Amino acid sequence: MSSMAGLKPKHFLWQADGKVARIRLDRPERKNPLTFDSYAELRDTFRALRDADDIDTVVFLPNGGNFCSGGDVHDIIGPLVGMEMKALLAFTRMTGDLVKAMLNCGKPIIAAVDGIAVGAGAIIVMASDIRIATPEAKTAFLFTRVGLAGCDMGACAMLPRIIGQGRAAELLYTGRAMSAAEGERWGFYNRLVDAASLEADALDMARRIASGPTFAHGITKTQLNQEWAMGLEQAIEAEAQAQAICMQTRDFEHAYRAFVAKEKPIFEGA
Amino acid sequence: MSSMAGLKPKHFLWQADGKVARIRLDRPERKNPLTFDSYAELRDTFRALRDADDIDTVVFLPNGGNFCSGGDVHDIIGPLVGMEMKALLAFTRMTGDLVKAMLNCGKPIIAAVDGIAVGAGAIIVMASDIRIATPEAKTAFLFTRVGLAGCDMGACAMLPRIIGQGRAAELLYTGRAMSAAEGERWGFYNRLVDAASLEADALDMARRIASGPTFAHGITKTQLNQEWAMGLEQAIEAEAQAQAICMQTRDFEHAYRAFVAKEKPIFEGA
Amino acid sequence: MSSMAGLKPKHFLWQADGKVARIRLDRPERKNPLTFDSYAELRDTFRALRDADDIDTVVFLPNGGNFCSGGDVHDIIGPLVGMEMKALLAFTRMTGDLVKAMLNCGKPIIAAVDGIAVGAGAIIVMASDIRIATPEAKTAFLFTRVGLAGCDMGACAMLPRIIGQGRAAELLYTGRAMSAAEGERWGFYNRLVDAASLEADALDMARRIASGPTFAHGITKTQLNQEWAMGLEQAIEAEAQAQAICMQTRDFEHAYRAFVAKEKPIFEGA
Repeated sequence: MSSMAGLKPKHFLWQADGKVARIRLDRPERKNPLTFDSYAELRDTFRALRDADDIDTVVFLPNGGNFCSGGDVHDIIGPLVGMEMKALLAFTRMTGDLVKAMLNCGKPIIAAVDGIAVGAGAIIVMASDIRIATPEAKTAFLFTRVGLAGCDMGACAMLPRIIGQGRAAELLYTGRAMSAAEGERWGFYNRLVDAASLEADALDMARRIASGPTFAHGITKTQLNQEWAMGLEQAIEAEAQAQAICMQTRDFEHAYRAFVAKEKPIFEGA
Repeated sequence: MSSMAGLKPKHFLWQADGKVARIRLDRPERKNPLTFDSYAELRDTFRALRDADDIDTVVFLPNGGNFCSGGDVHDIIGPLVGMEMKALLAFTRMTGDLVKAMLNCGKPIIAAVDGIAVGAGAIIVMASDIRIATPEAKTAFLFTRVGLAGCDMGACAMLPRIIGQGRAAELLYTGRAMSAAEGERWGFYNRLVDAASLEADALDMARRIASGPTFAHGITKTQLNQEWAMGLEQAIEAEAQAQAICMQTRDFEHAYRAFVAKEKPIFEGA
Repeated sequence: MSSMAGLKPKHFLWQADGKVARIRLDRPERKNPLTFDSYAELRDTFRALRDADDIDTVVFLPNGGNFCSGGDVHDIIGPLVGMEMKALLAFTRMTGDLVKAMLNCGKPIIAAVDGIAVGAGAIIVMASDIRIATPEAKTAFLFTRVGLAGCDMGACAMLPRIIGQGRAAELLYTGRAMSAAEGERWGFYNRLVDAASLEADALDMARRIASGPTFAHGITKTQLNQEWAMGLEQAIEAEAQAQAICMQTRDFEHAYRAFVAKEKPIFEGA
């Protein structure tokens, strides 16, 4: 077990209060584009989170009214044009590795979106576990607009499972923005809240989840990913094993004792 | 081929009228919790249904205004706390076996929900084929509240395919109740009806389905499960084979003859 | 690379304007049923489209106020009754091959639906990438009404991923029509438009998509199908490779240069 204490990222903002970490990209004047450096540092941070015991949930927040404008046109797209295949694949694998690290970090991630969340920004939202947004959020998988395919960082696999195959196909072929209202109606956003309360609401949800049985949450996250392409019978057996593991935690006993004593359980994450 | 005639379960209510069976849990004063015994007997009943020719659809009903309060805290959760792994796994596998038996029984199952449907009760609803509910239905995958993971009896595999990955994640991490209105909007419930007409509506739908080509219904159920994690090309070939089988049934010929004669077809389930 | 120029199908209408092709079945007086011949010719046409460079999107349109009434009762169902298994399987495989050819043609397909779209007609709509409809559209997977199973041409695999497992199950077990409003609400139809503007709207969308990076669109379509039953990690690696391929196209460079020059990119599909 390791710790996230003392983490001082160079390319994004990190704030840890109790067991909830907040992340924001930090170039609000340009709507927070990603760079090679911020991609790599985010990937490394989510990888480190996997073994960290002092953070239980992560909230990914906007900055200056926007979430993220995607890969920077000048810092990323310019250099990619003309790269050889080996370097291109190293880049697309690094971006995919960020999504893999988010999926494998073992902690629920809440994306709180305001303003622009496009390209790789939309992917970060998609790869989070729970998503809330303001009515002003504009989410676009706009890869087609830059001459690319919709299959970026897992979008052709994940987006259809969140909003349905038909809606995903339209967004990926046209690159058009999904409005916040569409996002809520289609199940992309779990809830819409005003910009003034976005951060407080996201933190409140993160704290409530962090006050739960966090070891079991990690197993839930593992199984949601693990069963993605499993047969039904195999998934049911996998859950029998996974839940039996959770039944040997002290948190399971805490919950039972608290119920009998008519108290609220206090979980310890083990 | 066997028969369900004479079935007299000890731990739940069973009623067969024509080819439609009704099941209700029977401890309404405690909102119908499941026990080790009722789990096992339900599993055995759905296993027996697979080879039974005298029942074509099953309706799972509430009792006393509630559907099911899940695994009983005193009868199930208490004993589980402190059990060794071998016994825990035997329990979680038995619960998974109930879902497998429901999936494999070859007959469409309609869950009709009123009041509380939580924990394993919510799972029984989820594992049914068609779901209707009253506006008062409260459905919660509340495993996290008892210190456990959301991966119970197939929930991490099945719930995302019913309501979408994002909505499923929120319900599984927070354990919060899904309202009936949300359930209908999200595709969990096919329809909401008043409590006064819930049973009649569910039975009406069950009878109409039972009056159809029930051998073909069994193939539909098989394929819905079988193609869960198949590639698209393989699924299409599997359906070519499965539908060719159905084209050799008398029911297919009955439908054709009835159409030509401008009559309503009478199906025999073979 | 081949061309669709000069295509003159015998069993359906084909019209190519620029890089957008229009298809309509052509027996409006009988609501456009499919026949053995039109199935085979449609399959061959979508297979030829795969290697054609002169068509970039396909629009499947209604004729005389209806989309398609499915397999013709007299021309198809009659002969099927009494066929031997070898011939039945040859038929179900041919129908499945039409869906496979649509999935593998490499071009986005837009279905524009008015009136009746039932049986194999509903399947053609389902197997398209984007779907728009008029408020009068009635879409029914009515195989159960003719004594067959819901597993026809991929329906048990594809329909649940478009509208959710529970809604798909109801439609497949009951054969009831999905209204246009339900279809839009459930994500089957991307949009509803009046009959008067249906064709113009579908063509407008097709032209806009055809003006995009069509090589990349083909990769998007490939990956949406290819990742259907892949694990998440494998899907992310597959997208890293697929997107790296797209980053070596001239279209990617065109988009970058146009952005820097504050112009609209002109894509060439390579």
